[in-house]
Amino acid sequence: MSFTIQNVLLATDDGYITTDVQILGDKITAIAPNLDVVGTVIDGTHKLLLPGFVNAHTHSSEMWQRGLISIFPLELWLAELYDFAPLDTEKVYLSALGTAVETLLSGGTSVVDHLVLIPGEELETIASAVRAYQEVGIRAFIAPLIQDQSLSAGLPAGESTQTHEPFFRSTAATLELVEEAVRQFHHPDAGVSILVAPTGIQLCTDALFTGCIELSDRYNLCRHSHLLETKAQEKLAQEKYGCSAVTHLQRIGYLGDRTSLAHCVWLNDTDIDILAQTQSTVVHNPLSNLRLGSGIAPILKYRQAGVNVTFGCDGASSNDSQDLLEAIKIGSILHNVTDFDYRSWISPRQAVEMASLGAAKGLNLADQLGSITVGKKADLILYDLTNLSLVPRTDPIGLLVLGRPTNVVDSAWVNGRQIIANRQVTTIDVEKLRTELFHLSEWATNRQSQTVEQFEVHYRTVMGLI
Amino acid sequence: MSFTIQNVLLATDDGYITTDVQILGDKITAIAPNLDVVGTVIDGTHKLLLPGFVNAHTHSSEMWQRGLISIFPLELWLAELYDFAPLDTEKVYLSALGTAVETLLSGGTSVVDHLVLIPGEELETIASAVRAYQEVGIRAFIAPLIQDQSLSAGLPAGESTQTHEPFFRSTAATLELVEEAVRQFHHPDAGVSILVAPTGIQLCTDALFTGCIELSDRYNLCRHSHLLETKAQEKLAQEKYGCSAVTHLQRIGYLGDRTSLAHCVWLNDTDIDILAQTQSTVVHNPLSNLRLGSGIAPILKYRQAGVNVTFGCDGASSNDSQDLLEAIKIGSILHNVTDFDYRSWISPRQAVEMASLGAAKGLNLADQLGSITVGKKADLILYDLTNLSLVPRTDPIGLLVLGRPTNVVDSAWVNGRQIIANRQVTTIDVEKLRTELFHLSEWATNRQSQTVEQFEVHYRTVMGLI
Repeated sequence: MSFTIQNVLLATDDGYITTDVQILGDKITAIAPNLDVVGTVIDGTHKLLLPGFVNAHTHSSEMWQRGLISIFPLELWLAELYDFAPLDTEKVYLSALGTAVETLLSGGTSVVDHLVLIPGEELETIASAVRAYQEVGIRAFIAPLIQDQSLSAGLPAGESTQTHEPFFRSTAATLELVEEAVRQFHHPDAGVSILVAPTGIQLCTDALFTGCIELSDRYNLCRHSHLLETKAQEKLAQEKYGCSAVTHLQRIGYLGDRTSLAHCVWLNDTDIDILAQTQSTVVHNPLSNLRLGSGIAPILKYRQAGVNVTFGCDGASSNDSQDLLEAIKIGSILHNVTDFDYRSWISPRQAVEMASLGAAKGLNLADQLGSITVGKKADLILYDLTNLSLVPRTDPIGLLVLGRPTNVVDSAWVNGRQIIANRQVTTIDVEKLRTELFHLSEWATNRQSQTVEQFEVHYRTVMGLI
Repeated sequence: MSFTIQNVLLATDDGYITTDVQILGDKITAIAPNLDVVGTVIDGTHKLLLPGFVNAHTHSSEMWQRGLISIFPLELWLAELYDFAPLDTEKVYLSALGTAVETLLSGGTSVVDHLVLIPGEELETIASAVRAYQEVGIRAFIAPLIQDQSLSAGLPAGESTQTHEPFFRSTAATLELVEEAVRQFHHPDAGVSILVAPTGIQLCTDALFTGCIELSDRYNLCRHSHLLETKAQEKLAQEKYGCSAVTHLQRIGYLGDRTSLAHCVWLNDTDIDILAQTQSTVVHNPLSNLRLGSGIAPILKYRQAGVNVTFGCDGASSNDSQDLLEAIKIGSILHNVTDFDYRSWISPRQAVEMASLGAAKGLNLADQLGSITVGKKADLILYDLTNLSLVPRTDPIGLLVLGRPTNVVDSAWVNGRQIIANRQVTTIDVEKLRTELFHLSEWATNRQSQTVEQFEVHYRTVMGLI
């Protein structure tokens, strides 16, 4: 498919131009005023074209519990989440559709799904998500969430001498599962990539990390993990390694320019230098970090140290939405309270670059994605600047990032294929999806989580809350 | 007008019931299942009824610069705002309409407009806002923003010995203006109240505060001001009074149960006790406090001390939206990072109470507004729980507060009058408003503010940034 977007606003270094953009097949082929029309004509009048953003960290199936989990810190929140996650692959398929739709309607053209696997149906889980993303047409980076230690091992021990049940699946079997997922589903040219994705130091052995490094190198896969989301994880790392988690991950060779790390709230200055040296990417999930009380990630320090930073929504049970523009807004203004010098604050234009090119770098695709550049792939979002939430007219990017844009995505293309037109997703029946999500769920309140009851006294003791 | 909402979800102390709600005239007259139908029947199936929220602090005309002002702290931001505020009363009217519409579509039935007055056209400015709010039908609390010192006096002096130009209007003339506004526009029964609203200690003399107290007592008016929004204001208060601003305001008698105070970021523990003792209300504007880098208001401490807290959007140039649900979400989850003990965190249900009953208390109207109670006024919002942004179904209030609800307000009533039906504002032509806001504005970037240039060196010096 080829098309020409005419008279569209494009951001320049310090302003905007009105120009034409030509797309042949999957690539941007020309950017100039008054281009000859090739293919379909798209009217760009009063519209802004931006590179598609990336929802660079989420867990799609959490959509089934959004709005529901108690106001808890991560460790107890996770216990409640897992107590009430009776998923099946059909639900995985539907929540992946929902995640894709909300991401697209808020400016995203790619999603990194740190996908929770149904025990015993791991490959079927991945297949369900792949099917959903391919049906919608969003670019998908599926990071099957793996661990080889059981949930209670994720809490620091403190003075206690708890033992933990072994995880139900061996490290070797888990690595074999990831390799099989790569064989079956890793098709970057078709818009689906598999990442190695050990959940984090809190629930993974070095053997699992090392096995993932080996798979990553053999198949040229990106690496994706949680990192130091909470103070409890910082404590745990010291107990486990006698050094910071970042130092340990560097020693075992996990960090690098294909490695993206969600959260990164509890890093010290040495850790930050290591991320910069290794060219690792931080995925900032501001809403989740607030909701779970994890803390404010030192994003301004990361930027000053030259660490690449991008944004994610995190799963919809800890946010509780999949609205990328919301994550970008909060993820940029939140840090103004961490440094009195406003000259280090993140501008709306910088936030847009973090959400697009920053994400592309973290996925080792900066040569192909993340900016509107001749030769790059056509992953594009066209925003309708006449929308009520974007008037009066001022600075289009300021309005998008600092405002609360609603129903503003006029069109979206992924790999040159149009998947939103006239503000409607064209590839799936969103109305049918809405009805299914409604009918497969019920109103719920006041759940009692048994695992929370098991964990809470220990958690409060070890975190100094008693 | 009378109506009966049938089979609607209402929140109880710890869950929900499905019931009927009957409204006669402007009041809620019965709440019970299977009520006899009186007046129009409203189908409440799969809908949640909540008391209308209050946008308890905003400046409506800032809508003309939303998305546009540089990423600055308050003092420089304000300089830029005022350099580019060539308002006329028609624009004031339109931005008041816009503020009312965005507030309504995000669950608000009342707005407290700390209204910037056009010099020389002060009463005409107020008349324009009154006209807009009455046309929309939202309950309006208009707080004409007054000061009697010029802008540069709002910066702490530090080591400098600057003098400031006198403000263009005398204190007496300003108070006379407010009194005339009360005579002309203060009609609470018609849905419009005037508040006395000295902007804050940074730009007001004691004579102005004292005159406002006197007017407030004579006409039974609420009082509304900014308070200690920034660290610079904390410094200034020490320079001006030799004590904290709160101590000073208590001494002159400004605080009390009809006084609501926007921001309250830089209060110490003694200040907090004073707010509790005087039963003053804090209006928390989380998005503005982040955008301007003002800081994180100690809201959990306020709640623990028994201080009443509610939410505002603040003006649309410092947020940059008028979405109350966004302010409520961020205003509740933001504080989870300020206290490790999750037992003090704000739950979604507590946030809803703060946004409704908390606001009513601050406006001295808790006997009439703020809850769905027989005998109270029918300021009500009916949310459509089948909306895509609220599925899968879980906890309705959790979804509303923690999610990112979009297009979810099915109906709104103010004083028993329906002003939103089937998700459309019924009282004004929103499409016409959108077109006017679009055509009366233009794309803009890269403005140079002369006042910022004047202030910046001094600001950086006195704040220790050089």
